[in-house]
Formats: sequence, structure tokens, C-alpha cells
Amino acid sequence: MNARSLRTSTLAIAVAALACLIAFATPTAGRASDEAAPIYGITIPTGYRHWELISVAHEAADFNDLRAMLGNAVAMKAFRNGMLPFPDGTIIARLAWKYVPSAENNKVFGQDQSFIAGPATNIQFMVKDSKKYAATGGWGFAEFINGKPAGEAVHKTCFPCHVPAKDKDYVFTRYAP
Amino acid sequence: MNARSLRTSTLAIAVAALACLIAFATPTAGRASDEAAPIYGITIPTGYRHWELISVAHEAADFNDLRAMLGNAVAMKAFRNGMLPFPDGTIIARLAWKYVPSAENNKVFGQDQSFIAGPATNIQFMVKDSKKYAATGGWGFAEFINGKPAGEAVHKTCFPCHVPAKDKDYVFTRYAP
Repeated sequence: MNARSLRTSTLAIAVAALACLIAFATPTAGRASDEAAPIYGITIPTGYRHWELISVAHEAADFNDLRAMLGNAVAMKAFRNGMLPFPDGTIIARLAWKYVPSAENNKVFGQDQSFIAGPATNIQFMVKDSKKYAATGGWGFAEFINGKPAGEAVHKTCFPCHVPAKDKDYVFTRYAP
Repeated sequence: MNARSLRTSTLAIAVAALACLIAFATPTAGRASDEAAPIYGITIPTGYRHWELISVAHEAADFNDLRAMLGNAVAMKAFRNGMLPFPDGTIIARLAWKYVPSAENNKVFGQDQSFIAGPATNIQFMVKDSKKYAATGGWGFAEFINGKPAGEAVHKTCFPCHVPAKDKDYVFTRYAP
């Protein structure tokens, strides 16, 4: 390879790498906020809305929502490989939207059966850092409503429900293939 | 830059690009199949399980499922920018899992309210190609069960419900931010 073709190849590879890294890092859909949630000091992770899907759920009763759990790269690898405990750096995002009937879909189906994502309710994050969050099973917790962190009272309620069991690193959610 | 440092930089960039491209292209979670679905000739897109989340839904009645719609890069850009009609190359994946109660979650919540993703039911894809699928509004359709395409009779039922309206490129799903 001569110097000219080497330069050309280098440039082509650099452009490909840059485009690829931008695709991963773009924060446009992440509603980033610099304001940290109380107790755990967690901010909204840049670009979380681009993360991959872990699973979905429906909470009835007061929640009345449809929800999706997304994971960063560390989380997805851990879920897919069954790694327990989850490694430090794992972040799980829980998005939720009001559970609303879809008149449009029901019309096509010919009966009332379809429920879709309405307005977003809040976003929660679980961050694994076994040293920083040693007092809460290695997990830090955060909730944001319209991009702003919920109060301290809300954050005191996270850990009592998310206590890691001895034999598993408890996070409720399992990967849905 | 001398020849040695240029070679080193080239290698570093090449490794970064390769790692990045592998992350996008890995088919491990995609249950890829080479068998094409009838009528539209669509195969399972490699790596679709790594695609980003568009939205979620619950279909009651016979379906009795929780579902998630994922989009390839073309689809996500179109959804986020409100591009209509969807550009050629758009692919929407619809994953679905049985709608099952979670005894584990209900115990923590203290009441029966939690429904999670059970066993996967089937996977559907909508592929936009305005020329190839001109007879069906520009969309091709495919359903796979356990990695195998459903039959022709099933595929004849796709388009009648997914008829694009005049003023929008009808795909049921809206992006849930």
C-alpha cells in the first residue's frame, strides 16, 4: 500500500468510525437533564432512549401504565448472558406511558381489545455501582418526571422494593427474547 | 505524522470501527432465518432484536399479548422526524409475548396488578419498498413463529388491516418518547 492509498483508507475508516460513534452517542431523544436525583445523585443518562429493549410490562391499578425497560450496553450483555450479579456500569431505564385504549385499532379489530402508550408518566433508572451504592445492594435509583428529578420522599421508596435477594441480583425484569 | 504512527493510528481506528460495526451487526439475538415469508419474500432481518424501541402495546382478547415495536435506523429517523410517507428501507419489527401475571411483582406491590412478558408468540415485520410492494401500499409484510415463516393464508390477512390512508402512511404505531 502506498502512502496515498493508506491516507485514503485511513480517512474512510475514520469517517465510518465517527458516523458509527455519533449514532451511538446522539442525545437528541434522551431528554437529558443536568439535575441530579436526590440521595443517589443520578442524572438522566445521555442517549438512553436509543438503548436496546430488555422487556415490557403492564402495571394496572394506580400505575395504569404500559412500560418498557431499556438497557445500556453493559446491561444488555449481562441480561443476554445471564450474568449475576450485574456488573458495575449496568444501567436499566424504565420508561412508562399511560395505558390508553386505541379507538383507531379497535375499529380495525372490530372489538375493544387494543391498548397503547399514551402520555409519558415518568422515567426511572437503576444504576449498578457496588461501591458507591453498597448500602442499597449495589444499586442506585432515580426517577424523573418531565425531565426533572422526583423528590427525596419518592427516592426513599425505591430500595425497600428492590432489595437484592441472596441468590440473584434483584431487578424485577427479565430479558424477553 | 511518520509512517509508524500513521500505521498505529490506522490500526486503532480500524479496531474501533470494527468493534462498532460488530455491535450493530451481531445476529445473536436476532434468531435469523434464511427462509422467506410467502407472498412478500421477506426474511428475518439480521440483528433486529438490537433495534431501538418505537412503542409498546397490549392486545387483549384472542391475542392476549404484550408487544413492542422496534425500528431500524431508517424507521427511527422517520418516526422521530414525522416523515410521511415512510422512506423506502423502513423496517418495523413487532415482537409479542404472552400477557402473563407476575406473582413475584404482585407480592411486592401487595396486590394483583402486574403483567409481564411471557413466552414469545410471533414476530412480524413491515418493510417499506414503494416499488416492490406497490400493490400493497408500498409495504411488505411477514410473520415468523419460532423463526419459521407463517403460511400464505396468514400473509393474505396483513394488508387488508394495514391499508395506508391517503393522508398518512398507515402503520398503526406512533413513536412513544
